[in-house]
Amino acid sequence: MADSASPAARSDTVRLDPSDNVVTAIRPLEVGAAVEGVAAAALIPRGHKIATTAIPKGAVVRKYAQVIGYAAEDIAAGAHVHTHNVEFRATEVAYEFGTDLRPVAPAKTIDTFRGFRRESGRVGTRNYIAVLTSVNCSATAARKIAAAFGPEEMAKYPNVDGVVAFVHGTGCGMAGDGEGFEALQRVMWGYARHPNHAGVLMVGLGCEMNQIDWLLEAYGLKKGPLFHTMNIQDVAGLRRTIELGVEKVRAMLPIANEAVREECPASELMVALQCGGSDAWSGVTANPALGYACDLLVAQGGAGVLAETPEIYGAEHLLTRRAVDRKTGEKLVGLIRWWEDYTARNKGSMDNNPSPGNKKGGLTTILEKSLGAAAKGGTTPLTGVYKYAEPVTRPGFAFMDSPGYDPASVTGQIASGCNLVTFTTGRGSAFGAKPAPSLKIATNTEMYRRMTEDMDVNAGRILSDGMTVEEVGREIYEQLLRVASGEVTKSEAQGLGDYEFVPWQIGAVM
Amino acid sequence: MADSASPAARSDTVRLDPSDNVVTAIRPLEVGAAVEGVAAAALIPRGHKIATTAIPKGAVVRKYAQVIGYAAEDIAAGAHVHTHNVEFRATEVAYEFGTDLRPVAPAKTIDTFRGFRRESGRVGTRNYIAVLTSVNCSATAARKIAAAFGPEEMAKYPNVDGVVAFVHGTGCGMAGDGEGFEALQRVMWGYARHPNHAGVLMVGLGCEMNQIDWLLEAYGLKKGPLFHTMNIQDVAGLRRTIELGVEKVRAMLPIANEAVREECPASELMVALQCGGSDAWSGVTANPALGYACDLLVAQGGAGVLAETPEIYGAEHLLTRRAVDRKTGEKLVGLIRWWEDYTARNKGSMDNNPSPGNKKGGLTTILEKSLGAAAKGGTTPLTGVYKYAEPVTRPGFAFMDSPGYDPASVTGQIASGCNLVTFTTGRGSAFGAKPAPSLKIATNTEMYRRMTEDMDVNAGRILSDGMTVEEVGREIYEQLLRVASGEVTKSEAQGLGDYEFVPWQIGAVM
Ligand SMILES: [Ca+2]
Ligand SMILES: [Ca+2]
Ligand SMILES: [Ca+2]
Ligand SMILES: [Ca+2]
Ligand SMILES: [Ca+2]
Repeated sequence: MADSASPAARSDTVRLDPSDNVVTAIRPLEVGAAVEGVAAAALIPRGHKIATTAIPKGAVVRKYAQVIGYAAEDIAAGAHVHTHNVEFRATEVAYEFGTDLRPVAPAKTIDTFRGFRRESGRVGTRNYIAVLTSVNCSATAARKIAAAFGPEEMAKYPNVDGVVAFVHGTGCGMAGDGEGFEALQRVMWGYARHPNHAGVLMVGLGCEMNQIDWLLEAYGLKKGPLFHTMNIQDVAGLRRTIELGVEKVRAMLPIANEAVREECPASELMVALQCGGSDAWSGVTANPALGYACDLLVAQGGAGVLAETPEIYGAEHLLTRRAVDRKTGEKLVGLIRWWEDYTARNKGSMDNNPSPGNKKGGLTTILEKSLGAAAKGGTTPLTGVYKYAEPVTRPGFAFMDSPGYDPASVTGQIASGCNLVTFTTGRGSAFGAKPAPSLKIATNTEMYRRMTEDMDVNAGRILSDGMTVEEVGREIYEQLLRVASGEVTKSEAQGLGDYEFVPWQIGAVM
Repeated sequence: MADSASPAARSDTVRLDPSDNVVTAIRPLEVGAAVEGVAAAALIPRGHKIATTAIPKGAVVRKYAQVIGYAAEDIAAGAHVHTHNVEFRATEVAYEFGTDLRPVAPAKTIDTFRGFRRESGRVGTRNYIAVLTSVNCSATAARKIAAAFGPEEMAKYPNVDGVVAFVHGTGCGMAGDGEGFEALQRVMWGYARHPNHAGVLMVGLGCEMNQIDWLLEAYGLKKGPLFHTMNIQDVAGLRRTIELGVEKVRAMLPIANEAVREECPASELMVALQCGGSDAWSGVTANPALGYACDLLVAQGGAGVLAETPEIYGAEHLLTRRAVDRKTGEKLVGLIRWWEDYTARNKGSMDNNPSPGNKKGGLTTILEKSLGAAAKGGTTPLTGVYKYAEPVTRPGFAFMDSPGYDPASVTGQIASGCNLVTFTTGRGSAFGAKPAPSLKIATNTEMYRRMTEDMDVNAGRILSDGMTVEEVGREIYEQLLRVASGEVTKSEAQGLGDYEFVPWQIGAVM
């Protein structure tokens, strides 16, 4: 597309729909700057909104053709529209189910990547040995077991990507049943059987609530040459636990090294769709581009997993219309209700979500953020709604319940089976999460330039270079196939991903 | 004391009070074994209880002369008394305040240790440089900064104990006010100003809820040669953040190395009293011995900080009687009420606490566990009740609110100012928590022998060798003075303590 054809390249603002009464500033606007025939009445920071018509007190503020809030006072045309003059109200929505189904056109060619096909039939994009912990009390043991495998020893196993310790702060001081306990067990189960793991060693203390033996029994996990467990209290101390653990991993390495990549269809890819440190561009550039990439993958028979329930809050009625059936849509509504209860019980509110950084970037309400966040999920039918860390079993576009908080959400997505992670960010992030490679997508060129060593894709070119959402979306899709085949992401090159395993802790810590 | 004078050494069971209707088996009892004139009707595992009289359905089960539960069915003399035939009931208690004050007799001599006296006037027992994180998003950055300081470089700074990264799973996806947020900020503040830290570098991402700048403002922390902050988003990426962070720490090291130990009175010691992996002996050996050590320290003008509110549940009426005034006692009752609400809101119950390991070890109800847990606090007046991670400001025996979960509780105790940690355990533990050395105290000789490399003191000798509680308590106290002066604990010798920083996450993760 020629520069002259890109409206963004010609204007100081972006209008997302003709019916909107606000537009977004691409660059800082001085007082008096002309915007769609009105004059800016205040300095408008980059990414913030300006009213293009007067909005009387109580009237809706409209962006993406959707309600993002209500005028808390009379807002004049040309005024800065943000938290100081916009209020959030929970609105009653009549949910519709399956009324906006746009069945995906199957791709004409079958795209492929080179992955590790496992005995289970599932395909890995990486080949790690995992040291899992049931409780924080075995954290040091697990770290020291993993740390025993230095570059020299690992050089003997070129097909193994590393030995990784998955260490966390929970696993005891919790109820032995209920949501929190079940979520943690699903995470452990999901990492234990993840196709990016060639072998697994589970290390516990012995007296914790999250008992390893219960997990094996409940989920039918079987010990074997590539699946071991141990408890510090049984082994009689830390030193012996580390020694024995190192022995067990050392015995798995030659077997893990026998795994080789082979040609696999793109339908074997399951991509986590994530955002963090969002800004006003997230919903305009990176998220819609990622949504397009998701559509391309779904056309191949692959899966895209959206999550972050609090961040689609207020936009869930758009997703229920895409649900393949009523039951799937109602499951999503059930999650929303659960979250309203969860936050109320914890003396919070669903409007807490835009973080200081979000607000600084120009996002005013959770509704505005949600509409932009949901764009990551593209346009294809919603084929399933899953609990946190629950295995995703159907291809297509899926939704998994999770907090918006990046490490907790991605931990659930990986446990659910995602073998790739995509992560859009406006303010910048140094995220990575073993065992799945993370592709980081910048929403704006300025941040991309500042953090090039951390960003894999610059979706900011949609604004700065007049590229289309589809062009950047295709780039993301093609890069995902290469990364799935072993191409190293920015976060992998920097050695990230060892400290971002954060199972969602739902209940009380006791 | 001669062996013949120790009743424990002569018997198969331990009776804790003449009014008890159960006694505890020191060794496994066969069916038919004679116990206080009755015959064991079942196999009684070691540490478990046997009824010495018939207990009709609904009658109280008594241990420590206190109610530990109610007979769920008719219990015959000689029967095994445990979860299968005992039920828990919340009882109404009329609290008394200050009715059991046993003012501490000031010590005749002033004991001393060699510590690091800081400009603040407070005294450290170790000399670390801390790399603190505001959010999980800066975890890898902090770890890589700390990891840059290898043994060769650190050898140049013999007075510095190490560079430690304090990494955690929270800091965003949370409400920006309220209990959870305030608790996290208190933890950060407490670690930032901890006397065991010579210097501090705080690393954030930039857009997180837990903003570093807000913390500095709220708590009046000032940047200087030994206190630095930085955000990844400002510094423009992970690599540069690590480089700059390493520079800042490198500049602090020579200054930190100038600190030298000097003679300080024992009144400068504040000891965290903690237990984890309790068993039936915890309340019989290690906890009362630690309580005696606490009494000795309080007599010197030092402080002992009990915590783990759910674990004193049901025994709080004994603590309110020791409160120096009504207000202090009522603060404790307030914590109990808060916990009842917190667990109810989170669909839990205060009776969840005995873990599978606790129960296996013979503890039947939370009441039984609480009575044993509270013994760690000795006998002196309760001089203060504090919020989680709140600075402890008065000498004497104090209580700090926290979960029972070891890493979350000890993180709060250290943040509150504790410069030593004591940790009693029956099932065994490999706990350690920088920057405070942790003294681990075994409740039984069998576990001590199995995990000698992890245990600093064997309080099991009270049963196996006929030692008195006071003898072991004095040993603990004297060892604490040596450890405070630099003697290395078992967990320090094993390099533990880098992965046990777990701020209590109270509210919803969003
Ligand atoms: Ca987000
Ligand atoms: Ca997120
Ligand atoms: Ca030292
Ligand atoms: Ca405990
Ligand atoms: Ca504990």
